[in-house]
Amino acid sequence: MTDYLLADRHACSVARAIDALGDTWSLLVLREMFLGAHRFDLLQEHLGIARNVLAARLRRLVDGGILEKRQYAAHPPRFEYHLTPKGIDLYPVIIALMQWGDRYVADAPGGPIVLQHKVCGHLTSLVPACTECGAPITAREMRARRRAV
Amino acid sequence: MTDYLLADRHACSVARAIDALGDTWSLLVLREMFLGAHRFDLLQEHLGIARNVLAARLRRLVDGGILEKRQYAAHPPRFEYHLTPKGIDLYPVIIALMQWGDRYVADAPGGPIVLQHKVCGHLTSLVPACTECGAPITAREMRARRRAV
Repeated sequence: MTDYLLADRHACSVARAIDALGDTWSLLVLREMFLGAHRFDLLQEHLGIARNVLAARLRRLVDGGILEKRQYAAHPPRFEYHLTPKGIDLYPVIIALMQWGDRYVADAPGGPIVLQHKVCGHLTSLVPACTECGAPITAREMRARRRAV
Repeated sequence: MTDYLLADRHACSVARAIDALGDTWSLLVLREMFLGAHRFDLLQEHLGIARNVLAARLRRLVDGGILEKRQYAAHPPRFEYHLTPKGIDLYPVIIALMQWGDRYVADAPGGPIVLQHKVCGHLTSLVPACTECGAPITAREMRARRRAV
């Protein structure tokens, strides 16, 4: 398996990405954002999370540039949270988690959600593909190397 | 953004996948497995994690069918840990985290690791692609629906 990733473990972007996200609550907050839940009370209701914990996770995601806070009412001031481009780029992470969950830990085969690709119109699933040859890949077909400095 | 995922939040496979994985330490243990580190002492050294915490994470991943424990010496008995097929299927999750980390939280542009697709031979990156039309997708091109029961 050594071929899959040959990393400099101490500069590993997996570790840094996890640091930036904070914890698994943060991933569930992001899931909610992709689901269209943008307001504190709705997030709290959906996640069943303590208000102080949710506030801390939102603050961390805003500080990290993953979410932005937008005012939607002036009197009293009210805010909602939206994904930044950096946050939207976490879509492959959320989808990869969802598809693995669908396959291995869902109640029903395939899980509760189907994805539609609006461009081709088909119900689909997503696979990692090589940006060079366009082919879908498997872990065994990949090798990792340190970047030449 | 509501189109991205329209989930039944309470049967969400993202939440279940996160539950199955445990916590972010588990993702770092999986990173190490993809890097070829299979023995307790090596994992502990690479991760800088307390032995009891590491033991608990490994036990959870084994109980969850993500890792398997293999005996490699008899006197005294010694074991190492390997990814099961269910664990190998977490490759897209780890890669998605790595690539996002490379893009947004790495020291150098592109991060420390380059991936090579052994099939086409090119240095590459991975993008989620539609299994129906084969095209790489973006979050905005996707819609989610509840599966008909």
